Amino acid sequence: MEFRLFCLDCGEQYDGFGYRLACDACQGLLEVEYAKEFSFNQPSSNSASRLARFSYRLPIRSSANLITLGEGGTPLIPLHRLGDRLDIELFAKLEYLNPTGSFKDRGNAVQVSVLLENGVDAIVDSAVGNAGHSTAAYCAKAGIRYIGFAEHDLNDIKMRAIAYHGTELHWVEGDRTARREAARKYAKVNNVLFFDYGKNVYFVEGQKTVAYEIAEDMIDMPDHVILPSGNGSLLLALWRGFNEMLAAGCISRLPRMHPVQSTAFQAIESAYNGDSWIPEPDAKTMAIGVSIASPPRLARLVEICREAEGVPVSVPDESTLVWQHEIALREGILIEPTSALVLAGLEELLRRGVVSKGDRVLLPLTGFGVKEPIMLTNYE
Amino acid sequence: MEFRLFCLDCGEQYDGFGYRLACDACQGLLEVEYAKEFSFNQPSSNSASRLARFSYRLPIRSSANLITLGEGGTPLIPLHRLGDRLDIELFAKLEYLNPTGSFKDRGNAVQVSVLLENGVDAIVDSAVGNAGHSTAAYCAKAGIRYIGFAEHDLNDIKMRAIAYHGTELHWVEGDRTARREAARKYAKVNNVLFFDYGKNVYFVEGQKTVAYEIAEDMIDMPDHVILPSGNGSLLLALWRGFNEMLAAGCISRLPRMHPVQSTAFQAIESAYNGDSWIPEPDAKTMAIGVSIASPPRLARLVEICREAEGVPVSVPDESTLVWQHEIALREGILIEPTSALVLAGLEELLRRGVVSKGDRVLLPLTGFGVKEPIMLTNYE
Repeated sequence: MEFRLFCLDCGEQYDGFGYRLACDACQGLLEVEYAKEFSFNQPSSNSASRLARFSYRLPIRSSANLITLGEGGTPLIPLHRLGDRLDIELFAKLEYLNPTGSFKDRGNAVQVSVLLENGVDAIVDSAVGNAGHSTAAYCAKAGIRYIGFAEHDLNDIKMRAIAYHGTELHWVEGDRTARREAARKYAKVNNVLFFDYGKNVYFVEGQKTVAYEIAEDMIDMPDHVILPSGNGSLLLALWRGFNEMLAAGCISRLPRMHPVQSTAFQAIESAYNGDSWIPEPDAKTMAIGVSIASPPRLARLVEICREAEGVPVSVPDESTLVWQHEIALREGILIEPTSALVLAGLEELLRRGVVSKGDRVLLPLTGFGVKEPIMLTNYE
Repeated sequence: MEFRLFCLDCGEQYDGFGYRLACDACQGLLEVEYAKEFSFNQPSSNSASRLARFSYRLPIRSSANLITLGEGGTPLIPLHRLGDRLDIELFAKLEYLNPTGSFKDRGNAVQVSVLLENGVDAIVDSAVGNAGHSTAAYCAKAGIRYIGFAEHDLNDIKMRAIAYHGTELHWVEGDRTARREAARKYAKVNNVLFFDYGKNVYFVEGQKTVAYEIAEDMIDMPDHVILPSGNGSLLLALWRGFNEMLAAGCISRLPRMHPVQSTAFQAIESAYNGDSWIPEPDAKTMAIGVSIASPPRLARLVEICREAEGVPVSVPDESTLVWQHEIALREGILIEPTSALVLAGLEELLRRGVVSKGDRVLLPLTGFGVKEPIMLTNYE
């Protein structure tokens, strides 16, 4: 609750008032600093939000202001059957059991609360996928107008959910960049806040609570955390969360963190290896959550891989789809391809000897499988 | 953990060994009796299952045997905007944030664990809807063969999920009774356990933990609980849970409990009012979870309404669909029609003066909206 923002580039400082996406002085990236350190001993606030008990480490002025749909406090369960087969100790953090069925909700709970604390009553953004669905739901709860720019595709379950929550949709032809530019232009012309989801410091602060909960739940920390990476916000957030806990003496060691991408979009692995890489013009993956050609904070993501002794890997869709079905058949877990990516990544990391027999491995599972078409081959 | 089964009809007693759906002696209905009373002070077992901390009130022999996908411990949140409009204190228990996206998971966690404790390696049942999806997922986790009889409809998201978890599906033409009979016949011919989901005593024991959590979360108990009722297992289970807590002195009063049905299937309301009623031959409702013409324990459900000062109501689909959209627009909550039924029921109970201004009202929201087609009218 007691916090300030400071600019990573010029060092300028700001108090908690105002919704800021960049430094006023130099447009540099902002980071948050808190008065209190992380502690496992904070009393539960008895609030409906499971994030609220971490509010002393969130950039909101009062936990009473937290807009909640019940995010956080997700289950962490062992995956005995797959773990036994791979000869490792395997665990999953079920982030798809957040309110809109994806891990985006923790971040949106925080950033939409910050919007409301600052009297913002309308935002504009490109509206797509789990992020769009989550933003739409939290804006509905907060009574904030959400103006979204999207491709016209009402076969998409997530797009239907975005529309159903009352988002004011504008259809745009073209790719991600076209949608973003249309949203930016609308924001300028109509004097509405451009949400700028991808670079949002408040979003990352909400997401980092996954790390807090992993450490609380597991007691004995995992050796490896393997996670899907598109823009890399989850990698940024988890690394930040674990490091806060280490600094406060609440954990004694950090896990290694391995980002997984699709072979169709392997910016992080390529940058890590010093390879030049650009996507094929028609690049596509079933793991749509990681179909990001150019992550905005790529240099920082590679840096985190070094710090976290992480090995970024890229996997083909065939492997992802096999594992998506395997976890449904053996563990009763239904996740979307973007989430199943981490199992294909785990297989690759085992093959390379990065993950060894007997290691403790934690997989954050990010998106619920019922939010995308379920692919059946044997019945049709 | 220490428990016995006894027959409600003849009083015959059984220890916890064996999977029993009826009394061996007289085929009467069974009930469970525990050695320990409910207590708010039981220590957390630090298990992955949020049900495990209630295992002393579940019919399993050891909490270590509990098959878990992370069920239970669902959020309870205030619905300020709808509550303000209706001038009541409104709360929702988000049962759709259970592992397969519905409230069926608590019951299946328990009954599938009992199957495993008793060495059952295959079951046969009709496989449909949220119940089928949940059973399929828990059987997958437990390594139990699930043989399901269903109508051929792979446009149905839940049926696709059932298939994806490896259920051995047999297609049957005809209605609910036809599927059930086909399953029963298969069970007899092939000597496989007939699951008999609807009358299952273990299922109800798992479901009752919703009541435990409501009492824990709310401190000041709700005046009313309004819930969707088809077979009525949730009504049975919640009433059982609340009464256990009252008997143990853990709560000081019981809430009133009001079951809501669709006007197309109003067996409970009709029986309560002493009216004779049979459904239209082509009776249909969008609230498919309550499309039950003849609940197997109807007399007991009516009895519970009397005990719980409940007023059963039936609502038309038009009202349900309006409220389904309202809760998405005002509270950011996406639920299926069967779950939205309770809001239409609440409106009717307010109209009749059963629920009064200022009352505390709790709605268990049972099924996630992404598991059924999301209906849009403004965009297509």
